[in-house]
Parts: sequence; structure tokens; C-alpha cells
Amino acid sequence: MANGYWKRNLNETAVFEMFFRQQPFGGGYSVFAGLGTLLEKLVNFSFGGDDIAYLKSLAVFEEAFIDYLKTFKFKGSFWAMDEGTIIFPNEPLIRVEGSLIECQIIEGLLLNIINFQSLIATKACRVWLASGKGNLMEFGLRRAQGYDGAISASRAAFIGGASGTSNTLAGKVFGIPVMGTMAHSWIMSFDTEEEAFDCYASLYPDRTIFLIDTYDTLKSGIHSAIKAGKKLTAKGKNFGVRLDSGDIQYLSTEVRQLLDKAGLEKAFITVSNDLDENIIETLVKAGAPVNSWGVGTKMVTGAQAAAFTGVYKLSARIEGKKAIPVMKFSDNPDKTTNPGVKQVWRIRDKNGEAVADVLGIDGADEIKTGQRFCFWHPSADYRHFYHTIEGSVSPLLNKWIENGVLVKEQPSLPEIKARTALELESFDSTYKRLLNPHIYKVSITENLRTLKLEIIEKHLGSKNN
Amino acid sequence: MANGYWKRNLNETAVFEMFFRQQPFGGGYSVFAGLGTLLEKLVNFSFGGDDIAYLKSLAVFEEAFIDYLKTFKFKGSFWAMDEGTIIFPNEPLIRVEGSLIECQIIEGLLLNIINFQSLIATKACRVWLASGKGNLMEFGLRRAQGYDGAISASRAAFIGGASGTSNTLAGKVFGIPVMGTMAHSWIMSFDTEEEAFDCYASLYPDRTIFLIDTYDTLKSGIHSAIKAGKKLTAKGKNFGVRLDSGDIQYLSTEVRQLLDKAGLEKAFITVSNDLDENIIETLVKAGAPVNSWGVGTKMVTGAQAAAFTGVYKLSARIEGKKAIPVMKFSDNPDKTTNPGVKQVWRIRDKNGEAVADVLGIDGADEIKTGQRFCFWHPSADYRHFYHTIEGSVSPLLNKWIENGVLVKEQPSLPEIKARTALELESFDSTYKRLLNPHIYKVSITENLRTLKLEIIEKHLGSKNN
Repeated sequence: MANGYWKRNLNETAVFEMFFRQQPFGGGYSVFAGLGTLLEKLVNFSFGGDDIAYLKSLAVFEEAFIDYLKTFKFKGSFWAMDEGTIIFPNEPLIRVEGSLIECQIIEGLLLNIINFQSLIATKACRVWLASGKGNLMEFGLRRAQGYDGAISASRAAFIGGASGTSNTLAGKVFGIPVMGTMAHSWIMSFDTEEEAFDCYASLYPDRTIFLIDTYDTLKSGIHSAIKAGKKLTAKGKNFGVRLDSGDIQYLSTEVRQLLDKAGLEKAFITVSNDLDENIIETLVKAGAPVNSWGVGTKMVTGAQAAAFTGVYKLSARIEGKKAIPVMKFSDNPDKTTNPGVKQVWRIRDKNGEAVADVLGIDGADEIKTGQRFCFWHPSADYRHFYHTIEGSVSPLLNKWIENGVLVKEQPSLPEIKARTALELESFDSTYKRLLNPHIYKVSITENLRTLKLEIIEKHLGSKNN
Repeated sequence: MANGYWKRNLNETAVFEMFFRQQPFGGGYSVFAGLGTLLEKLVNFSFGGDDIAYLKSLAVFEEAFIDYLKTFKFKGSFWAMDEGTIIFPNEPLIRVEGSLIECQIIEGLLLNIINFQSLIATKACRVWLASGKGNLMEFGLRRAQGYDGAISASRAAFIGGASGTSNTLAGKVFGIPVMGTMAHSWIMSFDTEEEAFDCYASLYPDRTIFLIDTYDTLKSGIHSAIKAGKKLTAKGKNFGVRLDSGDIQYLSTEVRQLLDKAGLEKAFITVSNDLDENIIETLVKAGAPVNSWGVGTKMVTGAQAAAFTGVYKLSARIEGKKAIPVMKFSDNPDKTTNPGVKQVWRIRDKNGEAVADVLGIDGADEIKTGQRFCFWHPSADYRHFYHTIEGSVSPLLNKWIENGVLVKEQPSLPEIKARTALELESFDSTYKRLLNPHIYKVSITENLRTLKLEIIEKHLGSKNN
């Protein structure tokens, strides 16, 4: 397509928007993530010598187009929501303005990064909230989808609520705290469980977690841990035990009692074994005495929802200074897009609680505190409601890149994490239920509604007569 | 753990095995993939200067251990099944022999690569078989789990049955044929659909596929495609149309009729839109006139099963020349491992059809054609059957690395793909049903059974008395 745009001189300016169609996991919200990774790649995007040689070898493209790619840089402009923003279907999360070619060339990169990290940040957020904002460790490396499936997932899980990762490389690359315990092989490489525990405790007196299910949790593991743990506490150190199989509620309760009976009230219990937000919620509600949660596979792959449904669609062509809005109809009505160059505003009440989001035309629409505003349903044309805005109105799309140059500083990863936690607070708990949550309202302005109806009428007029 | 092994001088030789616990997708078989990628990483494994600096900065490890890592290389030996082998639960797919440290350090790398590529090769195989071994294109980049989630998935999907990918980088890296069509944005960037089609056809007369659902497939898209396509056929070229929304059976039937009526019997129909093996099987059985399938998200992420359940467990410690088998019990009986240094044999009948696999002790067990052999169930001790082996007996684990050096040549990717297709042929169709398939028998030898019972008795004797 890029070759085609170049050849036909279709290098006019275009506006593309990224949005998603459906909340993953049957949830009520998602977390926008991956922006930092994407911005870095975008401003450094280029074709290397071996890329050029490969494209040439395909014998599909003209020499002159290949020459054009040799010096290709992304010189467009780029708007996006802040990383960690709570997001909803059909809202533009990203808006790109540039030549058709450059907008098109970056599509795969943009969708790949944002779709994956948003999926995992959302999943991690669900897990973290289910644990009662507990201590959550990401353990996903061994079953993540490839090495970047692990690294990027560690980053996204940290944003969503994990406090650390077992992936040392993610620690190195992103500065995420690394943590880990022993594996069963550590214990099996010693003659007895107790020897294995003593050896580990002497190595890491400040960070010992005994894995107690290698042979039998209640008959063997916990007793070995109590013996080894008592030696640690005699030195003024604390320790933990980890359950990795069996019934967590039953075992954690029994183990807690045994620890307490041995005077080890401060020893903590950490659990793992194919956990997800649903299992954790059940355990927390049942009062299982768990202090920290190790979640791997299901958090870093998304489990039942392995992909985020983000898409990237042309929303306008710019001719001179005029934006010509475009719209895709498709044979599935839910794949119909919102036309035009848009902004998203988040409306909050006096207490800072989110009321609704509104999509409108950037530059043309204005939404202000104090205004009695009409919120139109984005597709069911007969539905709308009036609401007098008493709190704040915040535009969510910010400009990050102008003509290929970064113009806004990226926050640090801990800042993004903190922002996510804070944002979550401003949404009513009904939106955060795991099952069948309340649907947050995303509306369109009167201007956008009128534009949409005009285009539909024009299109149906020309096709249906 | 490595630091611990090093410090306590626990650098004795150990044997680890990788196996998996459950077929993904509720299927009857899996495809072993990722070996080529893993072997390359293993023989080149080292810690870079920045890795060392990071590990030092954690202030957890001793200086001397860090020094040891500076020159660390994998010097162990490595056995594995050939890539493309059809695999079953509990069979060792990989066996690693080396110092405890080196075996442990490579765990994350090994599991990450093999788990993901085996998952996707298996999924692709299911999709490809469902299509009647049709023309399958992998379109997964935009929603894959990170960039390696895309690249490695392209490789694995090609092994499993895809004939090409839309991921140009995978084409460059692995030599996989790249293919693609236009996106909706191509069409929306022109004033009319017909103009967009004509322009594309003039650029790529030998590879034109018109995307016909941007506005309305039957009222607009197919008619524009017929007009543009007739100009192509007048020049002696063929073309295709692509359906990306709506009901595929209905639309493909209508579109086929319209194409045929226009004298375009050779024009082909390609479809996409969140396809998977179940949807494709239904469409094929219903006789939808589809010539090729574009499958993305659900193939490259695994969809409902987003992870392969491979694990890596210590199976023996080697003291001097003696292997001391070890076994993990766990509180979940299905997590109990098979002890010892093992081999897997595949038994085929006179027609080359696979009968059963057998796990036994490498070096001690011998299985030969002509033998009346007792196949023991791996866990239900009372179940076994006798079978006189009339066909071939093939050991499946081959040595690839000896003391850190590659000793066996890796086949090319097309060779691996061909091997997979051939292997599949030797399994009865009952094992390949998508739903509720026949369970292929994986047995253990009398030797392995005896060893297992001895260890269990010894263990239970010491704990249960």
C-alpha cells in the first residue's frame, strides 16, 4: 500500500485513529498501556540496510520507492491519552496525522505494542483489585508468548498493579523490582527438604521464601519450613512460605495455624499455581490467610482473552487546510467507524467521580463546566440525556509528537503505575466488578452526531436509490 | 538459585527434562516447535557487560559469583525431539544434562521459546487441517503478544501449516513467503471504490486481491471488483476478492455466483474476520466456496488456550557415573513427575501408523520389532496391555548439543514444515478430531514402572509411618 501511495503521489495528509471495540475479559474498563514503548520506537523508526536489501529482493517494489524508504523517518504528529488512563470502547486512544504513507507504515508497530500492553495492564489491574490491592508478583516468563511477550508483559503488569517480576531482564530494562523464590529443583537437588531450606536461608536471610509442596505440604514441607524458619527468626529475620499446589484456602488456613502455633505469627504466606482474578477473588472472600500472590501465565497472556481488539482506521483526509471526514461502513454495523478528527473529554462530578466520556470534533466542539450538555448515544440515535456539568472536563488526547519530534516528556514507569491506581479511584465500583459490570457511558457530541448522519445519508442515498 | 548452587559448590551434574501436562485446545495432539530458535540461543548464550552491571547493582550476589557469570557458557549436553514431531503429554520433549547451575540458568529461555512456538504450531495445524489442508495465510501482527509474539508466531504457524505471512519482518528473518492485500484505508483514501481497485490492479497485476466490504459487499464491493477485475483478465491476469465481515457462507456463495455470471470463474475468494479452526471447519462442511483463508489473532495468540503447559523438572542427579533418579510428588497427583534419565520410543505398525509411545530408561530399556511388549499405563498401575511390535520402533530424543557444541545439523524451515505434514499422516484421523478426540496411548516400560514404584514406596514409607 505504501508503494502504491508513493507511486500515485497519494501522499496527502491523513488522520488515523486507534480505538478498540470491546472490553476484554467481560470487564467494564481497560487500562491504556504501551505508549512509552511506542513513542521511543516511533521517533527512532527507520529501515536498516538489511531491511532495504530484503525488500529489494522481493522484486515487488520500484527502485525509487526503495530509495525513498532508505531515508524514511516518521515526520507526522501524534496525539494519545496518557499511559495508565482508564479507557472505553470506541474512544480514540491515539490519533496520528501525517502523510498517508507514514501513517500506514507505522500501523503494525502501533497496534502490536498498544494492543498487547493494554491487554496485560488491564488483566493485571483486575488481578490486583481482586486481591484487595494486595502484594502481587508477576511470574510469567516461562509461558509468556515469546521473549517480548514476557518483557512487555512485565512492564504492563507493573503498570496495572504488580509490585515486581521474576523476570530479571525486565528488571534490567525497566527498573522493575525483581523477586523470586526457589523452584522444586532446588529442593530436589538436596538429600532432604530441611537441608535445602537451611542452605537457602543462609544465603538469603533477608528474602527467604520456602517452597513447601515438593513432597507434601502438611506432612513435610511446613514442618521443614518451621524448623528452618525458627533458626532465621532467632537471628531477628523473618521469612515466608509458598504454596504451589493443592487447595489454597485449605492449605493456607492449616499452614497459618501451624506457623502461629510455632510462634511464627510474622511469617508470611505466598501462593501461586495458575491463579487469576476469579480464583483470587474467591480466596479473598473466603478469608484465606494469604499475604502475597504470584501470578504468571494467566496474567501475562490474558488467558481467556488473548488479544485486545484495537484497530487503526482512517478517519479523515486533509486537503489543504480542510479535513474531509471519512467513515467505514462494513457489513457488520458494529464495525462502522466514527468519522472526523476527534477529541475525547472526560466529564467528572464535583467529587471528581467520572460521569461519562464524550467524543467530539477537535477544534469545533467545546465542553465546559456549568454547561447543560446533551450526551448522544454513539449509535442508537434515539437515545440521549442531558446533564449539567458540575465538575471538571478534561480532554484526554495530548500531543506527544509534532512533525516527528517528541514535544512532551514521558513520565517514569512508577509515575504511570501511580496514575493508573489514582485513575481507578475516580470510577465507581460498579464499573469494576469482574462479572457483568456496569457499562460506563461513552457519548458523542451533537456536532459529531450530525456529521455522522450526514455521511450515512449521503452514502445510503447514493447506494440505496 | 544459581548463586546458591555455586556458593555451596553444588555444581554436580544434573538431568532436567521438559514435558507438558495437557493438550491445548482440547485437542488430541501437539506439534513440537521452537527447537531451531532455542538451539541458536543456547550455543550463543552469555551475559553481556550491561547484564553483569545490572546483576551487580542488585547487591544480592557475591563478586566471585558475578565473575563466574562473566565467562558463563552453556557447556552441557542437550537432547530433543526433531522439530515438527507430533507430541503427547508427559513425554520428555527435551533432556538437558549439565551442571545444576547451567541447567537452571537456561530454564526460562527454554520454556519460553518451546512453550510458545509449540502452542502456535499446534494451533496452526488445527486450522490448516480444518481447512482441508487449504491455502492458509497468517495475518496476526497487529494483535500478537508483542513483536516476538508476532515474529515467533509467524515461524511456528508456517511449521504448522500456514503458507505465508503478512509480517514482512518474519519474511526477512525466516524466509517465509510474505503476502498481503489492501486495507480499508486504501479504499477510503480514494474518492470511489472502483478508483481504488483500478489503482491497486495497475500496481500489482500479478497479485491483486480486492477487499470488497468497505462500503457494502453485495451492493457495492463485488460490482467494483468485477469491473476492475475484467480489465485485469483482459490483460491475461487473474485476481481475487476478500471478504472481511458479514456471514462468510452467505456472502462467499453470492459472490461466487456473481463472479461466475460475469465469466470470472477463475477469480478466487479469500476470507478473513476473526477465523479459527472451528469456524473454518463449519464453513468447509457447509460448502462455502472459499479458496484461501487469512487467519490472524486467534492463530498467533492461541485464543482460548493462550499458553502451552510445558514444564522443566529435575529428573536425576548424576554422582560420578551413577544417575540418582529424583521425583517431585506435589499435592496435586497430576503434578507428580516421572523419575530418571529417559528416552521416548514411537511404535508404528506395518503400515507406518503410530500405535503408541513408550517412555523408558535410556540405556537400560531396549524395545525391538518382533517383541511382544507390555505397555504400562503411566499412573493407573492396574492398566496395561500386550502388543507384538510388527512395525518400526523409533527413539524420538536425539542429541543436538554435546558439551556445549552443536553436533547435529538443523533442518531448514521448509523441511520442518514438510516433516510436520508427513508426521501428521501417520496418525489415525480419530486423534485429529477438533472436539473430544481419541486419546493416543503414552505408556511406560516395566523398568520405569518399577523405578517409580520403588521411589514412591521409599518416600511414602519414610513419611507415612
